[in-house]
Amino acid sequence: MASSMILYWGSGSPPCWRVMIALEEKNLQGYQQKLLSFEKNEHKSEPVMAINPRGQLPSFKHGDNIINESFGACLYLENQFKSQGTQLIPDSSAEQALVYQRMFETLTLQQKMADVIYYTWRVPEDERHNSAVKRNKEALSAELQLWEGYFQKMDAGSYAAGKNFTMADVMVFPQIAYAFRFGLSPEKFIKLGEYHNLVKKRPSVEASWPPHWKENPQGMDILKDF
Amino acid sequence: MASSMILYWGSGSPPCWRVMIALEEKNLQGYQQKLLSFEKNEHKSEPVMAINPRGQLPSFKHGDNIINESFGACLYLENQFKSQGTQLIPDSSAEQALVYQRMFETLTLQQKMADVIYYTWRVPEDERHNSAVKRNKEALSAELQLWEGYFQKMDAGSYAAGKNFTMADVMVFPQIAYAFRFGLSPEKFIKLGEYHNLVKKRPSVEASWPPHWKENPQGMDILKDF
Repeated sequence: MASSMILYWGSGSPPCWRVMIALEEKNLQGYQQKLLSFEKNEHKSEPVMAINPRGQLPSFKHGDNIINESFGACLYLENQFKSQGTQLIPDSSAEQALVYQRMFETLTLQQKMADVIYYTWRVPEDERHNSAVKRNKEALSAELQLWEGYFQKMDAGSYAAGKNFTMADVMVFPQIAYAFRFGLSPEKFIKLGEYHNLVKKRPSVEASWPPHWKENPQGMDILKDF
Repeated sequence: MASSMILYWGSGSPPCWRVMIALEEKNLQGYQQKLLSFEKNEHKSEPVMAINPRGQLPSFKHGDNIINESFGACLYLENQFKSQGTQLIPDSSAEQALVYQRMFETLTLQQKMADVIYYTWRVPEDERHNSAVKRNKEALSAELQLWEGYFQKMDAGSYAAGKNFTMADVMVFPQIAYAFRFGLSPEKFIKLGEYHNLVKKRPSVEASWPPHWKENPQGMDILKDF
């Protein structure tokens, strides 16, 4: 089954990483994959555009089925390979509710991180304002505190939605790892730091760790003062 | 079952509307609900904040399970009441792939509509730029054309992901209806207009149509030149 899958991905992109973790967790090693360079604009290259008019990564195909949206691809893999590998959506209604809640809250964390990290890349120079930078940082700081609080309320050693690794982790872990890569302090965000340390040793996560982070373990410091 | 559910919602909010359509489609009429006013800041009121620290609508509770994220709540309802009412996630892998793809593309449409419609509400006066307004409009125009193209490639009378009403429609229809409410031209977006006309007569959609749109059928014209 895995050999009829192809994933186009970029190193370090949380949405790409999600799909790779889901593939590992569902024991779908052996899928075809092509690492592309955002810098070289390869996400706009012909093989990607052929299956993804948005020209974005991840782009993912399974047989004739195309699911480029990272949340969609991960849910599709869980649904199609339900009894294979890790069960990512639990059966019990209480556990399931929390998994779905945290999964989709990840999108807000992602948005607020992007507003800070990509500000100068997204906003043309003559449209930039210190007041906007300040507001974006405050919003991200509040968001990170909210997530730190979620982990504070859970038992030590918990995953994002409880004692088991679930789809909530597939979604949020790459975002948390990205925050630490960009300088977030594990001394200030203690619970997020513990979570990061717990999950980064998971085989699915180790196997899919961004190659350019391995090559160059030194990250950036954009979030170091948070 | 439905009586152990409570939904806090705001009229006309696409995320709230999604959850209401899903509840109708799953035959969960009879749930408790409370219509709140964004203008009166009731989404920050105590009963909402008690289950949703973000102070946003929808806020949704089923027994002790809290799922406030609209995508999460809808997937939860489908999963918990799989054999009841409309099957919103199809079994066949090809249909399922397209449903998941279109569901999550809705988030991009939502974001680009918000960037245009809420610009003056979100961006303080001294941070506004005509160049940003122009760029946001161009991005939304391209996004709407993409969706128009999706419907052009499908058979007449199709729903968002094929011949059946699915979770893709639960997600995207409220967004499309919102675009027409804000002045989108059904003469220019012919296929989106046909889709709007098809789905607005569906019982689940009629039953959950935003009450203030019924009271005042006259919308706004922000999108009329698109």
